[in-house]
Amino acid sequence: MIKVWCLISTLLILILGLNFSANAQNLNTKASWLNAAELYKPLLIQQELHPRAVVACVKSAKAYQNWTVERKSDAHLFFSNSIKSQSGTIVDFGNHFTGYVTFSVDNFGPKVVDAAVRLKFTFAETPAEVALPFDPYDGLLSRAWLQDEVVTISEVPATIQIPRRVAFRYLKIEVLGSSVFSDFKISDIVLHATTSAKRIPEPLSNNALTIIKKIDQVGLNTLKECMQSVYEDGPKRDRRLWVGDLYLESLANSYSFKNDSLTKRCLYLLAGLCNKEGIIPSNIFERPNYHAQNNPIFDYSLLFNVLLKEYVLATGDKETALELWPVVKKQLEIPEKYLLQNGMLDYEKAGKEWWLFFDWNDKLDKQASLQGNVIWAYQNTLELAQLLGKEKEVADLIPLIKKMSKAARKNLYDEKRKLFISGNGKQLSYASQAWMVLSGVLSPKEGSVVLKNMLQCKEIEKPGAPYLYHYVIEALIKAGLNQEAKDVLINYWGGMVEKGADTFWEVYNPENEMLSPYNSILVNSYCHAWSCTPVYFIRKYPNIFQK
Amino acid sequence: MIKVWCLISTLLILILGLNFSANAQNLNTKASWLNAAELYKPLLIQQELHPRAVVACVKSAKAYQNWTVERKSDAHLFFSNSIKSQSGTIVDFGNHFTGYVTFSVDNFGPKVVDAAVRLKFTFAETPAEVALPFDPYDGLLSRAWLQDEVVTISEVPATIQIPRRVAFRYLKIEVLGSSVFSDFKISDIVLHATTSAKRIPEPLSNNALTIIKKIDQVGLNTLKECMQSVYEDGPKRDRRLWVGDLYLESLANSYSFKNDSLTKRCLYLLAGLCNKEGIIPSNIFERPNYHAQNNPIFDYSLLFNVLLKEYVLATGDKETALELWPVVKKQLEIPEKYLLQNGMLDYEKAGKEWWLFFDWNDKLDKQASLQGNVIWAYQNTLELAQLLGKEKEVADLIPLIKKMSKAARKNLYDEKRKLFISGNGKQLSYASQAWMVLSGVLSPKEGSVVLKNMLQCKEIEKPGAPYLYHYVIEALIKAGLNQEAKDVLINYWGGMVEKGADTFWEVYNPENEMLSPYNSILVNSYCHAWSCTPVYFIRKYPNIFQK
Repeated sequence: MIKVWCLISTLLILILGLNFSANAQNLNTKASWLNAAELYKPLLIQQELHPRAVVACVKSAKAYQNWTVERKSDAHLFFSNSIKSQSGTIVDFGNHFTGYVTFSVDNFGPKVVDAAVRLKFTFAETPAEVALPFDPYDGLLSRAWLQDEVVTISEVPATIQIPRRVAFRYLKIEVLGSSVFSDFKISDIVLHATTSAKRIPEPLSNNALTIIKKIDQVGLNTLKECMQSVYEDGPKRDRRLWVGDLYLESLANSYSFKNDSLTKRCLYLLAGLCNKEGIIPSNIFERPNYHAQNNPIFDYSLLFNVLLKEYVLATGDKETALELWPVVKKQLEIPEKYLLQNGMLDYEKAGKEWWLFFDWNDKLDKQASLQGNVIWAYQNTLELAQLLGKEKEVADLIPLIKKMSKAARKNLYDEKRKLFISGNGKQLSYASQAWMVLSGVLSPKEGSVVLKNMLQCKEIEKPGAPYLYHYVIEALIKAGLNQEAKDVLINYWGGMVEKGADTFWEVYNPENEMLSPYNSILVNSYCHAWSCTPVYFIRKYPNIFQK
Repeated sequence: MIKVWCLISTLLILILGLNFSANAQNLNTKASWLNAAELYKPLLIQQELHPRAVVACVKSAKAYQNWTVERKSDAHLFFSNSIKSQSGTIVDFGNHFTGYVTFSVDNFGPKVVDAAVRLKFTFAETPAEVALPFDPYDGLLSRAWLQDEVVTISEVPATIQIPRRVAFRYLKIEVLGSSVFSDFKISDIVLHATTSAKRIPEPLSNNALTIIKKIDQVGLNTLKECMQSVYEDGPKRDRRLWVGDLYLESLANSYSFKNDSLTKRCLYLLAGLCNKEGIIPSNIFERPNYHAQNNPIFDYSLLFNVLLKEYVLATGDKETALELWPVVKKQLEIPEKYLLQNGMLDYEKAGKEWWLFFDWNDKLDKQASLQGNVIWAYQNTLELAQLLGKEKEVADLIPLIKKMSKAARKNLYDEKRKLFISGNGKQLSYASQAWMVLSGVLSPKEGSVVLKNMLQCKEIEKPGAPYLYHYVIEALIKAGLNQEAKDVLINYWGGMVEKGADTFWEVYNPENEMLSPYNSILVNSYCHAWSCTPVYFIRKYPNIFQK
């Protein structure tokens, strides 16, 4: 009896030990990836900036979101006069910047300041944000994203740094408390702006349209602002690495700032923070230590593979890609669970178990997008495997792509209308057409017909945000609709430029400037990474966009 | 002609040079006094404290200012639960403390915090202060003195120190912004309380009344809280060295904590910051560098001489007093300008050119108080001169005191009513009686009659704040009215104790708890140095107060 127990115990120890050893190895690998990420952490470039002018907000029905600014005076006038008589002043830094603000207060007039003073600083990316009151706030996201800071200054003179990093162009300063017996002034405001975008990108062709040059410039500015110690989604909000944004940023980066080590760092971060099942997170935080939000997105997970392929193409760095190859293979397992006998994905089951994103549009049916996205990601993974000599390991993808493509054509393509439908409601949407064309289900010629129909269709779900417009333009180019691609880019991003954008917005619907997925335009991000994508298109395809 | 010019030039240079040299010497002396002050800057003692309990504010007509608190639970329950469900919680540190608060936030529940959070911390010395809203604020002093701080926390977990020093017992915590997708908790709040009061004072006699013991304890607590890197007037407000407060604090300190070097430091600070005419400032700031508010108070300036005498008596440190003797003599010059032929001070002229303080009471006529105060300060200066062997230098004071005393008796004493009157309106006030008795214009027996009349008089201006009560009690003791002195002390300060004071208040009128010289009880200081004076009386006169 004792012998049997001994045997069982020994086996148990062996099994547990092996399991522990496998886990430990896995943990060690992930730790080494996080160490690599730390190694590639960029030194941020600092630029010291001061306000350029004093401006006033002016209400105007013609202006974006009904507000514009007018120049009032030079900034130095503000600094040489009593702040008490200037409470509510708005200063303009001349462009969108991200960084840390330090201000100095000093005595004004013959009497020294004899009491604590209280100031409120409101940082805004747009005129409406500085014009409209933040409270009462009914947005769906945290009120803390809004950039107003109340500072008590116990003693004057003083120089104080506002602890929080801010992203803004306009800054409103209000006096909330001061002594009636003495006066003071704000003698200086300094912004230490940061970015990890170092290189100055090449100028565009002289032949490029002025609007294309402007779109490129605003796109570069957007990308530069979002390039911090990771590719952030937005420097105002959420200030962190989201996979969807990262993908578009890294594409634009490859054709502009070429900070490839930042992309490498982000790849390692995602790999190092994949969950127990090996699925990469949708987004990660850097502080106080690297950690992921446990909130994976189906369509973002597979994006890792595409991202890595594009990284290898841009840099030739196969070594990193080989190191991360196990992560690529893990992401491939995600759709398997939802693959039906007929080659279609069970999008309803997937939608229950996962967040399917694709676009900020609650009405969007995601069946076709999901099917297209997975086929497209498989194809990209195959290409990556070819670059790395790993074709054999993913040889199964070839029949799988065929099967899924055939099923898509059969179940989603409306031969009569030459448009893809999605879901039980047979919904028409830009998302479905774009993802289906990108998946290669149709020939380029057929794709071209579908996309032309899409552009002319009136009863169709349009994109809710710039992120989806990226895939629409990519699809148009794939289908050879170069002029249409250029038109969409100019209409959409050019619209933002015409409306005064210093950086491109998270959400933009030309027909509804008050659109917010969060029930408040105040909490929208107006410098948002996924909107920088014109930089990629304009520079990757000069023959389309710069001629 | 040239020769004449040369002569004139030479003389001019000589005169300017001498003048410069005198000024330079003066500046050098003042700088050396400030250096000495720096040398005696105390190392603050730090104590780490945590909240003791969660309390709730309860409205009650019986409670001081209509608010009291009730214990709800142990503090640890607060820290182990979601802050979202506890927004508005008030924690109680068990006593009044002054220092810096650091808090930690951490994830609560399975999801990591996915957005910035925004917290509001309201620090309060009293239940009413934590119960009543701060805004809209209609106080006369800076809104910035009110101790509420809004903190944005960009990433969770985090440990953050609130930059401002705070003085409080109660702390309310409110959530102003957070994500609906995740939850968090405040995992810790630490107060690093500071004071420069090191020594533990002797216990009182066992025979002392319980109320006397309590008054002494609250007085010691008040003094301890105000003893920071200078004797402050109040750790919540104005957080700086005011001469009137310093005088009472140094007296109480001599009989309790005996931190004599703190007194020495403050003497040097005042001397080093006297103005061009050599007059000491009424109050000074330590940061960013030592500087004075250019706002001298007549009755505070002469207090320097009395303060220095008391310092020599307490410490025997004649060396410091001799070094500062020129400052003493400078203060003596102040009243000269206002001395009329008849021996009375021209109080109307003085009142136009100076701030005459004496008490927080707008109705108070200050003629008698000023006359008494100057005579009293002259006498104290004579005593100081005797201690330092400087009698000859101030020999003129002897006939001056006689002349001014005679004039006071003639012009201000109502022989019939046995009370002093003041001003054209012949006003009766506690201030006038107290200062006249302290000046020694009357014999002790006559003084005793006057003060008994004062105590029984109904149509008389009573003190508006504890500061004047000090001189009232001092006068009662001088006139041998020991029991009356004890009664006043027990009635007045005992009243605060009965109403729940942890530290003594800046302003206290037993008949009007809502009294504020600043139009808002929220900005009153509830730990105020000039209210610590019972410590001095109880411990200097054990036979009166401890029997």
